[in-house]
Amino acid sequence: MIREVAELNIGRDDVIPLWFGEPNEATPDFIKQAAIDALEGDQVFYAQNRGVPSLREALSVYVSDLHSRTIGIDRLTVTASGMNAIMLVSQALIDKGDNMVVVGPVWPNCCQTVQVMGGEARQVALRPDENGLWQLDIDALFDLCDDRTRAVFVNSPGNPTGWVMKSSEQRVLLDECKKRGMYVVADEVYIRLAYEQPRAPSFLDISLADDPLIVINSFSKTWSMTGWRLGWLTHPSVLGDTFSVLNEFNIASPTTFVQHAGLTAIEEGEKFVAQMVEGYRQKRDLVFQRLKAMPRVRLSCPEAAFYAFFNVDGMIDSLEYSKELIETTGVGLAPGRAFGEAGEGWLRLCFASEPDLLSLALDRIEPALS
Amino acid sequence: MIREVAELNIGRDDVIPLWFGEPNEATPDFIKQAAIDALEGDQVFYAQNRGVPSLREALSVYVSDLHSRTIGIDRLTVTASGMNAIMLVSQALIDKGDNMVVVGPVWPNCCQTVQVMGGEARQVALRPDENGLWQLDIDALFDLCDDRTRAVFVNSPGNPTGWVMKSSEQRVLLDECKKRGMYVVADEVYIRLAYEQPRAPSFLDISLADDPLIVINSFSKTWSMTGWRLGWLTHPSVLGDTFSVLNEFNIASPTTFVQHAGLTAIEEGEKFVAQMVEGYRQKRDLVFQRLKAMPRVRLSCPEAAFYAFFNVDGMIDSLEYSKELIETTGVGLAPGRAFGEAGEGWLRLCFASEPDLLSLALDRIEPALS
Repeated sequence: MIREVAELNIGRDDVIPLWFGEPNEATPDFIKQAAIDALEGDQVFYAQNRGVPSLREALSVYVSDLHSRTIGIDRLTVTASGMNAIMLVSQALIDKGDNMVVVGPVWPNCCQTVQVMGGEARQVALRPDENGLWQLDIDALFDLCDDRTRAVFVNSPGNPTGWVMKSSEQRVLLDECKKRGMYVVADEVYIRLAYEQPRAPSFLDISLADDPLIVINSFSKTWSMTGWRLGWLTHPSVLGDTFSVLNEFNIASPTTFVQHAGLTAIEEGEKFVAQMVEGYRQKRDLVFQRLKAMPRVRLSCPEAAFYAFFNVDGMIDSLEYSKELIETTGVGLAPGRAFGEAGEGWLRLCFASEPDLLSLALDRIEPALS
Repeated sequence: MIREVAELNIGRDDVIPLWFGEPNEATPDFIKQAAIDALEGDQVFYAQNRGVPSLREALSVYVSDLHSRTIGIDRLTVTASGMNAIMLVSQALIDKGDNMVVVGPVWPNCCQTVQVMGGEARQVALRPDENGLWQLDIDALFDLCDDRTRAVFVNSPGNPTGWVMKSSEQRVLLDECKKRGMYVVADEVYIRLAYEQPRAPSFLDISLADDPLIVINSFSKTWSMTGWRLGWLTHPSVLGDTFSVLNEFNIASPTTFVQHAGLTAIEEGEKFVAQMVEGYRQKRDLVFQRLKAMPRVRLSCPEAAFYAFFNVDGMIDSLEYSKELIETTGVGLAPGRAFGEAGEGWLRLCFASEPDLLSLALDRIEPALS
């Protein structure tokens, strides 16, 4: 549906595209240089199925430090993007007739991988409370589970909502999944893009090494590497062989010199990440203040990720409305319905853009939202 | 099984590894430079689901020229390697309980993708004639088909056999598949590495635009780009949307600047390809002459690809024998059984290596094979 709106962009040069979830800034030079060095050093041959060993070692140091516990390379598998990681997880867990319960509104692609494997994705919807803060009804979540439920998929910090699951909620969910023999699949690609705390809570903070937990991560958002296609999985070591063969049959390890650039991102990227998050915070504040002041708009301040997800009073059809907005204002937003039924009535604005452009976009949509 | 043998390599520095199917020469500089230029030009953002348009245009020109017929970009989808392309095809065609008939001995991974999708891979075995030339029994192939057969998978030129399917055989197979409502899935990654003709025959030479034919290709072998993870599919245009969404859910387009390097490989690579094939021809001749002279060895001269696949008189278990060879000679070969039951009794030697190393390896294994 986002693409359906975005296609109206073609042939127009006055559109401000805030529909896709992608940083507007290119990858920093030190990461590009690492790729060039690796290329010139002929890192152009096949790599090991689970990734270049030095990258897995660096990831082990990074995630162990981030979560204050030892996470060894036996629990780490490099993937060709977060998206690719989600597909591998569906291949590992879902057989025809199985289902996965997914906390939504959510990026639709995770549900689609379940369907590719012949399974069913069941959305349990976050609901905004009286302050517009998104809340998970954990009982409603478990009501959707049955004996064919293989996993619960949680994207926190969430796209499109910016919802951040509390550590206490994570513990309740993981404990219950353990009891029921289900996996928690946690998409934590936005974990470093948090504005109210140093980083968002992770299931890795509260779990044991052999808990039924698979955590998806990606270089795309944290190090501005969307087009590079690099991510990783953290999983119980018992799944190492499974992800090794699935990696082999899907792509046989991501691009080798890209993995070497990822190593540099991990080891030398902290200053960049801190600056980037500070920049996003300023954009978030700008967008939130402006949107909040528009009479038809209701939203909570996004605590993480780089989306403003807002309700528009009186809007019935978010897809049609997004198309109208493009037509009348030239501002490209994503329709909430693209993220599941619970997203109907809402629009998503990605604020990973230039402040000037964001201001101009807000100027243009203000009359319609007032 | 190849990995099982290769693991015996660890900690030894005297091993000559001829087990994997990978060129020993690094990617040529002009392709590496194209990647560097694209990186410096910030080609680091998401690309279109079916690939960067300029690469698809260049592929259209390339395949149209190669096959003397117009093949438009509507029939071309870029993938993250040939392996990834095979997985996408299995996702597109195979539902639980379906099967694919596969001409073997063959690289095992294509069968594994069928199994990941809950399907069955059925091997029909090529058999060597009295001259050691591999022959396909097309009746035996169709005897394996039933109403759950979605496709016939053909890898020609073949890994590990070097078998080249004749154009007349391709026509018979495609016609019969059309009648039965089955796809031909043709893995043609070795098509340019042919020694008896300018290139090997392709199903694209004899097919119509909407025939049930999916052709898999890759940059890995033709342009020495194994670690880059770039390939493409040629398919009926009606499958364009299917492969667009499957690409999105699997990887969402290969690494963007890698695609730009692929464009340069396609447009400026012909001189490199010609030189490389001439080099492989000399290595093939060297290896074939030497192996043929060993009393226990039986093989035909490989017409294409870069493997010598040979029968060893009296060898019962190719896996055990490969392990023994490593132990006693330090030469790493792939056991034939890794390519299906019909491969038992055979060994595969990849001759994409240095002539000096090849000669040394042959010196070392000669006593055991005499």
